[in-house]
Amino acid sequence: MASETHTRLTAHPLFAEHRDIWRAVISKITTKFVAEDENVLQHGSPANALWLVLSGWVSLSRMTPDGKETIVGLCSEGDVFGEASLFAHANYPYHAQSISDETELACIPANLLRELIIEYPELSTHVMAILGERIAKAQLKLEQMSTLTASQRLGCFLLNLCRTQAQGYKTIEMPVEKHVIASFLGMKPETFSRSIGQLSEIGIKTNGATVTVENVAQLRDFVCGSCGESGMCSTEDAVMASPPASKRG
Amino acid sequence: MASETHTRLTAHPLFAEHRDIWRAVISKITTKFVAEDENVLQHGSPANALWLVLSGWVSLSRMTPDGKETIVGLCSEGDVFGEASLFAHANYPYHAQSISDETELACIPANLLRELIIEYPELSTHVMAILGERIAKAQLKLEQMSTLTASQRLGCFLLNLCRTQAQGYKTIEMPVEKHVIASFLGMKPETFSRSIGQLSEIGIKTNGATVTVENVAQLRDFVCGSCGESGMCSTEDAVMASPPASKRG
Repeated sequence: MASETHTRLTAHPLFAEHRDIWRAVISKITTKFVAEDENVLQHGSPANALWLVLSGWVSLSRMTPDGKETIVGLCSEGDVFGEASLFAHANYPYHAQSISDETELACIPANLLRELIIEYPELSTHVMAILGERIAKAQLKLEQMSTLTASQRLGCFLLNLCRTQAQGYKTIEMPVEKHVIASFLGMKPETFSRSIGQLSEIGIKTNGATVTVENVAQLRDFVCGSCGESGMCSTEDAVMASPPASKRG
Repeated sequence: MASETHTRLTAHPLFAEHRDIWRAVISKITTKFVAEDENVLQHGSPANALWLVLSGWVSLSRMTPDGKETIVGLCSEGDVFGEASLFAHANYPYHAQSISDETELACIPANLLRELIIEYPELSTHVMAILGERIAKAQLKLEQMSTLTASQRLGCFLLNLCRTQAQGYKTIEMPVEKHVIASFLGMKPETFSRSIGQLSEIGIKTNGATVTVENVAQLRDFVCGSCGESGMCSTEDAVMASPPASKRG
């Protein structure tokens, strides 16, 4: 394993606790680079591994019998997918596909993971917390579909890309194609374009894939005031940790 | 504990596996009846217990800072809520409220549950499977918000109330107020009324809270043909288990 890969792998949040236990496992984990548009796993196939994203982006999607595709998840560095592998006899409930050209993934065989949890039960709390986070994220997204406008949902996505920056000017890159983001946010391409236009009123400018946010605090006010997670999500943590703004919005 | 309560408690799916381990725990579980509209737990308060629904209905809801309420879950017999209690230092991510007059709940203290999982690691697989089901349900609902029409979403809700009946005539009762179902399905009351009207075209009649379904198979065709879970959810299991229909909708 290349040393950069090893560094990215050991930095993954899955291994943040109980490092002594994980250390022996890490040597058994295979990693690979996956080209853009390449399939990682198939909806309905046996869930035989847990996947970790070390870099790049992966879309999780489902197809209805009448041919409509929905993107149920977008994963990037630090995320896991294929959590069905934690349960005996489960199948993957979605397709997973690489949607960036530098996607690096690690793959932990399901039986290795399950044996490990039986042997070291203290791992189960941590793994369950990761599952709990997935539930919370899905529930939050469901809520946002009813309570946030399309431009607020797009604003929330951009705010997450600003990561821990609480205020001030920020330049970000749309990490994947706009139509993928639109589908993930549950909106049609024309609604996505209209939302971009509406965000320009609060100082957000888009040029191709580059987005400039004039004042992150103003974007936060626009989004989080209508969100039930307000005060409790990671973008809010950034605000709490930052010094008071001399000028807001 | 009354013997009917004890019977309902031991029949809960949480205890379906490893009954020998759970037996000692069941005696330490408290149960209670909760009146309609009574709060069970508060959004943001420390998640100190896992709740099991023995009978009746509970709504899980969240409020945004600007006063919009969304119902993120509806729980009935056999469901669990308060899964945040499985993770150390977590808070409940929603309000829970009884919305029926015969709601009976059981409550397992979080520390008891966590100690038990450490002591009997084989429980963790089962508890994780329950969490996994919650993730799958939330993701399915997210998908359905994009892929199903409002009348298909209402049809799916009714189909679940038909439980294991795969075809033929069926009378069901709306278990909770229509505005609660509408909110849970992410639609406005007027959309809900319009959807009821549209469903009459496939033989579904509503009279107050009573719904008659002329042919469950026809309802299933109407809903499941547009759903990514088609062939893999519990209403489909019923179809697989039933004898071939001599005449299908």
